[in-house]
Amino acid sequence: MHDETGSADDGPGSGSVRKTGRRPGASGTRDLILATARRQFAERGYSRTTMRSIAADADVNPSLVVHFFGTKKRLFEEAIDLPFDPEALRAQVTGAPPGGRGESVARFMLGLLHDPECREALTALLRAADSEPEVLWLLRERHRRDVLQPLVRDLEADQAELRIALAATQVMGLILALHVTKFDVLATLTDEELTALVAPTLQRYLSQPLNPGT
Amino acid sequence: MHDETGSADDGPGSGSVRKTGRRPGASGTRDLILATARRQFAERGYSRTTMRSIAADADVNPSLVVHFFGTKKRLFEEAIDLPFDPEALRAQVTGAPPGGRGESVARFMLGLLHDPECREALTALLRAADSEPEVLWLLRERHRRDVLQPLVRDLEADQAELRIALAATQVMGLILALHVTKFDVLATLTDEELTALVAPTLQRYLSQPLNPGT
Repeated sequence: MHDETGSADDGPGSGSVRKTGRRPGASGTRDLILATARRQFAERGYSRTTMRSIAADADVNPSLVVHFFGTKKRLFEEAIDLPFDPEALRAQVTGAPPGGRGESVARFMLGLLHDPECREALTALLRAADSEPEVLWLLRERHRRDVLQPLVRDLEADQAELRIALAATQVMGLILALHVTKFDVLATLTDEELTALVAPTLQRYLSQPLNPGT
Repeated sequence: MHDETGSADDGPGSGSVRKTGRRPGASGTRDLILATARRQFAERGYSRTTMRSIAADADVNPSLVVHFFGTKKRLFEEAIDLPFDPEALRAQVTGAPPGGRGESVARFMLGLLHDPECREALTALLRAADSEPEVLWLLRERHRRDVLQPLVRDLEADQAELRIALAATQVMGLILALHVTKFDVLATLTDEELTALVAPTLQRYLSQPLNPGT
C-alpha cells in the first residue's frame, strides 16, 4: 500500500523542471487528503477551505492532515502543483509546426480539462485570486520558473514573454468561462469545435506578427 | 448632504435596462459603506468579507450596514452592480463600423479599468467564483438580462451569443491577467498597445467568419 503511487508517474529523473518533486513514498491516506484538498480548494476557494474541513471530508483525523502537510499554505501549494508536466506543454508549443501551434496548445489545454484532477487544480489556481498575498506571490514565481521561462527560451520568437502572456489571457478566460462562470453556449461545444474557435487567437499570439499595421 | 448623490447619474428615466435602479436618495454614509464593500470584495473575495469587516473599515456602526443593505448577499449584489452602463457597451459594439468593433470594445473595457470603482467591481465579479452558488446564479442571470440579451439582439450576426461569449473569454482573461495574476509584461503596456494586441481577437470573435476552413 505504501509505495503504490509514489513512483507511478515520477518518470525517469527529470531534473529541476518537473513539478516540485514532493512525493516521497506517498501513502494512500496522503493521496486521499491531497485529492480532497484539491476538490475543496476548487469548489470553495482558498479562504473557505480549512485543514479541518478537508479532514472531515476525507474522513481522517485532522492531526493527520497536519502531519502530512504542516500548514494550509503548504497543502494548497501542493494541491495546485501544476496538474500537467510543463515539458508536455512545451512539446505542444515547440513540437508543432509553426503554423499549428495555436491549435496544438488549444487541444492540449482542453484535453487537460477532461481530467477531473487537472480541472480542479486549474480551477483552484484561478480562484487563488482569493488567497493571501504570499500564496499569490509563490504561485507567480513558480509559474515563472516552471512554465514561462522554459517556454520563452524555446519559443524563439520576438517578444516571446509577451506572446505567452497573451496566450495565457485567452486560455485563462476560456477556463473561467467553461468551469467558473459557465457560459452555456460554450459548454455545449466539443473540444474540436472549441479548438477551431480559439486556435486562431492562440496562433496569432504565439507565432504571427503582433501589430500588423498600427 | 442627503440628496447630493442620489440623482446625479440616474439620468433620464431609462426603463428596465440601466443597472438595477436601487439608489433611493442615497446618503453619504450609504455610499461610503458601498464603496468600502466594493473594495473589500475585490481585495478579499466574497467569503472573507463580512458585514462587520466592512463596518470596521468604513468606521461606522455594524447596525448601519444591516440597516442599509440587510444581508451580505444583497450588499454584494449591489457592490458589483454592473460598473458600467450596458447601453454604453452596446454603443461601442454596434455604433462602431463593423471593421472596428474589436478595437472599440477593447478600448472601452481598458478605459473602464482606469476608474478605481469600475476596476474593483469588475475584479470582485471575477472573484465571485468564490461565492455561494446562489450568488453565482444571480450574477449569471443578471449578466444574461442586462448584457447578453441586448447585445445578441443588436449584433445582427450569425451565432451572436457564441460570439459574445468568446469575446467575453478574452476580456475576462485580460482583466484577470492585468489585475489578479498581474503579468508584469502586460502591466507595462499602454492602453493603445494593449488595444492593438487584443482588438484583432475581439474583432474576429464579434464580426468575422468563426470557422475559416475547418
